[in-house]
Amino acid sequence: MTAPTTSWIESANDGKTHFPLQNLPYGIFSVKGQPARVGVAIGNAVLDLAALDDAGLLSAAAKGSFAAASLNRFIALGKPVWSETRQRLTALLSGADAALRDNAALRDRALVLMDQVTLHLPVEIPGYTDFYSSKEHATNVGRMFRDPENALLPNWLEIPIGYNGRASSVVVSGTDLRRPNGQIKLPNEARPTFGPCRKLDFELEVGFIVGKESALGEPVSTADAPDHMFGMVLLNDWSARDIQQWEYVPLGPFNSKTFGTSISPWVVTMEALEPFRRDNPAQSPEPLSYLQQHSKNAYDIALEVALRPQGAAAPSTICRTNFKAMYWTMAQQLAHHTVSGCNVRVGDLMGSGTISGTTPDSYGSLLELTRNGAEPLKLADGSSRAFLEDGDEIVMTGFAEGNGFVVGFGEVSGKILPAPRP
Amino acid sequence: MTAPTTSWIESANDGKTHFPLQNLPYGIFSVKGQPARVGVAIGNAVLDLAALDDAGLLSAAAKGSFAAASLNRFIALGKPVWSETRQRLTALLSGADAALRDNAALRDRALVLMDQVTLHLPVEIPGYTDFYSSKEHATNVGRMFRDPENALLPNWLEIPIGYNGRASSVVVSGTDLRRPNGQIKLPNEARPTFGPCRKLDFELEVGFIVGKESALGEPVSTADAPDHMFGMVLLNDWSARDIQQWEYVPLGPFNSKTFGTSISPWVVTMEALEPFRRDNPAQSPEPLSYLQQHSKNAYDIALEVALRPQGAAAPSTICRTNFKAMYWTMAQQLAHHTVSGCNVRVGDLMGSGTISGTTPDSYGSLLELTRNGAEPLKLADGSSRAFLEDGDEIVMTGFAEGNGFVVGFGEVSGKILPAPRP
Repeated sequence: MTAPTTSWIESANDGKTHFPLQNLPYGIFSVKGQPARVGVAIGNAVLDLAALDDAGLLSAAAKGSFAAASLNRFIALGKPVWSETRQRLTALLSGADAALRDNAALRDRALVLMDQVTLHLPVEIPGYTDFYSSKEHATNVGRMFRDPENALLPNWLEIPIGYNGRASSVVVSGTDLRRPNGQIKLPNEARPTFGPCRKLDFELEVGFIVGKESALGEPVSTADAPDHMFGMVLLNDWSARDIQQWEYVPLGPFNSKTFGTSISPWVVTMEALEPFRRDNPAQSPEPLSYLQQHSKNAYDIALEVALRPQGAAAPSTICRTNFKAMYWTMAQQLAHHTVSGCNVRVGDLMGSGTISGTTPDSYGSLLELTRNGAEPLKLADGSSRAFLEDGDEIVMTGFAEGNGFVVGFGEVSGKILPAPRP
Repeated sequence: MTAPTTSWIESANDGKTHFPLQNLPYGIFSVKGQPARVGVAIGNAVLDLAALDDAGLLSAAAKGSFAAASLNRFIALGKPVWSETRQRLTALLSGADAALRDNAALRDRALVLMDQVTLHLPVEIPGYTDFYSSKEHATNVGRMFRDPENALLPNWLEIPIGYNGRASSVVVSGTDLRRPNGQIKLPNEARPTFGPCRKLDFELEVGFIVGKESALGEPVSTADAPDHMFGMVLLNDWSARDIQQWEYVPLGPFNSKTFGTSISPWVVTMEALEPFRRDNPAQSPEPLSYLQQHSKNAYDIALEVALRPQGAAAPSTICRTNFKAMYWTMAQQLAHHTVSGCNVRVGDLMGSGTISGTTPDSYGSLLELTRNGAEPLKLADGSSRAFLEDGDEIVMTGFAEGNGFVVGFGEVSGKILPAPRP
């Protein structure tokens, strides 16, 4: 039997919405005066899963997991429950099961228009790790800051390089961030100065949410890795380039990144992304055996970044790229993360690293798009940008394109507020 | 009025115990078949605070916070409640308030011998950050791996360098750890090999536990920093030197550290450590203004490391040092951590970085003690060690010495198990 593709919620069927019946991404929402709970995006509406659960329409195994301020409880139930819930939702929203469609009182309770909800951080994140898996990005950065002739560091082709990020400052789309203050070492001065970042940047990334914990001392293989993934989000790894440049040797980026990381409110499940798996990119040299993979772990997800200056009529699209070309896959990232014995937990966020393509308009950061500020971008409102200015808003979107529909991530946006007075 | 100094629990008064009346460190304990809860160490016993709370003997403001599997709920109540609880415990354990001493049934319920309890991870740790604040350690490492003539990197004297650690693998003392597998780049080979770490090391550290959250975008000043600290623990930052050497450029240590970090089960409060505050070490150049401090933020804590080979009759002490000589203080670490706007949360663990002194027997890692393995240590059982072998146990202890008593941390220990078969 083919899965149904249309819903009785008409806005889900226009071929353009990010949230058709084929998607069903999970998030946390609230409406005025009521507690936050789990919802699923469908067309221009949010479906309240706590209300469906109360009405007895969802899987018994998931009972009680939706009246919660994060997805963690539901995710922890495991893959069979995710699948069963997806099947139930598909039946209810297609009308194959008419229990929701034909119950006006329940529809009133359980369906809320998207523009009437507040969306919250979808997951309580016990740990955040950020990788560095785009060969083009690593090459661009290496060319600018290290040796242009040997832009890739010797370990890059062997290791899916990653580092521990700061989980406390991961925020949901729409959260404004203050420009960070920090130490900046100017080339002509003997000592660093303290003040607002002058090279504030974004990094276009996606991230996956860990859906199954692993035990300390027990590595997860590339073959098992997909079973440990619940879904994916868009991720903006805001970066203070001048602070980073001065602080990062030898222990890596810290204050240049920890002031904030934004993610999309909707978690698109791996099950919804299944039709968009693609062959893995070629890797040379062949990775060490623990990094070798025998399934398709690349995903075809188109990505865009737009910059909207304060007061501008329209945003300017400044980057178009695709996730499928990333050198290291998510399965390899997780296998590498755990090969030392490090454990992962439900809700852990694993960032892909900046996603840059091969052409100059596909670079995932201003650092690359403007060659470290040397070639400012022209925007639609006539202004230009080397790095972000106060009031600038960055909006990232992403979607996988199906036949007559898209499985979309919605957006992750964030606006830069002025730095606190030092 | 002078605070009382002796307890009716005789084992607290011998002048040698780490847990006299002046200490009262908090931990999480359980006895067979019962749920974990908050306890305080006193002499050779653990005092069950949930039982005292049930009996109505503790502060009303703390009611209900001790029947918990972590200290977080209690810590989140804030500094006035910590102080009030300490005063109540001091009164009850000195006998100034006889309600516990003279109630045999309650004593039976609330006092458990230390050797009859299991101690658990004391805090649920939302974020773990590790600093690098010993000038001697940074110099020793720089001398070995970078330029012996310019061992300290240019940023080290300006920034309390730190990086995000991995919170998921922080374990309580007594947890055995498997030797990690990982990528190792041997000097004569073109590509890395995969296998068990050959240069497994410890790092002697202490850490502080954040007691008060800060908001995103709101830095904590050095003056306010002490109000954000609940207490301190011993910390062993296990390190795989060969894996670290190959992976750490440019994003810092990852698999070489994430396989495990051990902390002591007892959290010694800042209030108990108050008498051991000392003048800050001299800093040159004078730090940037946000790092300047106007209170004494150094602490006189003697530290020791012992190594016990499998089956050896006695451990060998291999390092004796002191925390007071650290270049950057905990207040400076917290001010730097938050100056970008990064928020901290209750239970966050902030590691000091390896604590090395100026003499060769005061170095806080085997890397330094053996000059990267070139000068193996002789142990009491006649064997020698360049790096850790399977079966080796590392035991760290620490205490602040008062007049006729010590405020001790107990110990943090951990044994190395063989690597999983790759």
